[in-house]
Amino acid sequence: MTSGAPETVARSAFLAEADRLKGIDRATTLCDASRHENSAEHSWHLALYALVLGEHAPEGVSLSRVMRMLLLHDLVEIDAGDVPIYAQTAEGQAETEAAELAAATRLFGLLPEGEGAPLLALWQEFEAARTPDAQFAKALDRFQPPLQNLASGGVSWRAHNATFEMVEARVGAPIARSMPAFWDHIAPQIRDFLG
Amino acid sequence: MTSGAPETVARSAFLAEADRLKGIDRATTLCDASRHENSAEHSWHLALYALVLGEHAPEGVSLSRVMRMLLLHDLVEIDAGDVPIYAQTAEGQAETEAAELAAATRLFGLLPEGEGAPLLALWQEFEAARTPDAQFAKALDRFQPPLQNLASGGVSWRAHNATFEMVEARVGAPIARSMPAFWDHIAPQIRDFLG
Ligand SMILES: [Ca+2]
Repeated sequence: MTSGAPETVARSAFLAEADRLKGIDRATTLCDASRHENSAEHSWHLALYALVLGEHAPEGVSLSRVMRMLLLHDLVEIDAGDVPIYAQTAEGQAETEAAELAAATRLFGLLPEGEGAPLLALWQEFEAARTPDAQFAKALDRFQPPLQNLASGGVSWRAHNATFEMVEARVGAPIARSMPAFWDHIAPQIRDFLG
Repeated sequence: MTSGAPETVARSAFLAEADRLKGIDRATTLCDASRHENSAEHSWHLALYALVLGEHAPEGVSLSRVMRMLLLHDLVEIDAGDVPIYAQTAEGQAETEAAELAAATRLFGLLPEGEGAPLLALWQEFEAARTPDAQFAKALDRFQPPLQNLASGGVSWRAHNATFEMVEARVGAPIARSMPAFWDHIAPQIRDFLG
């Protein structure tokens, strides 16, 4: 490798460790409800959402940065696990955040000095959800699961006794912030389904 | 939705149909050999490879286009299935190509007029492997499976009685074209493993 052996070993170790995201199951299922989806294939699906819905992103959003964020956003679950959105509590929040930060530090720390830090920063930008790029990436991350739920008979909604008000608060708000027309489009379907 | 109902329905149909890629199994397994990987999570992994190894791309390669190609490149398998690289034959090749083109036409045709055509063109560019972007995307698509094989005990190599010469011809050549240092790095490991 042009950059020498230690960098090769470090990047290979990171990419092999990332493979474990394929073993992290989420609350949502495939559209056909045949099984739960894992966080790796979910991340692929979200990046495809970005590609197909990108023209609806707010002015100034960089789709390339959004795709990178989405590819990385769930890697922390390799150590911290997936916390289903309807299972999150105010008390659990600080603990989850600490576990995810430790995971991000370890995982991106596998990369060579100077390569992990920008990816850690990109993940932190996603989590903070204050920039337009991060807000659009978050909106997509909130928009895909309801579509999987509507297609599959609401497996993860039923597992957590979700009401329309819960869905509206936890996913409606971030979707409406960056993609208001999309929330207007799915909200009535979710209300019908859960109502 | 800002662009009106027919476009919403078309994009949602495409994204729901894409979900089926999570059900297409490949010859390679996860690194821990616990199960075969599917083409959706494989596509995610490749896009992450692009993100981490992108700085090693040849001059002038657009990483953003490479990531888009990799996200899309296997969608045709929803209709045409995955043909393991060591199972490909000269006679089967024309049939596979025809089935994949029909699949791409159907799948990207689900998108609104004017949105599917550029994605079909991007997939065709990947398949033709003549541009630097497509060649780098192909190199990554050929580089990840040997790493999965080396980690997992060579499940797909053993299933197809692969020799070093077969691996060199089918994956070594496209890797060496865009990422020569990476082929130099893994070739001895593959030779040791298969030799
Ligand atoms: Ca998540």
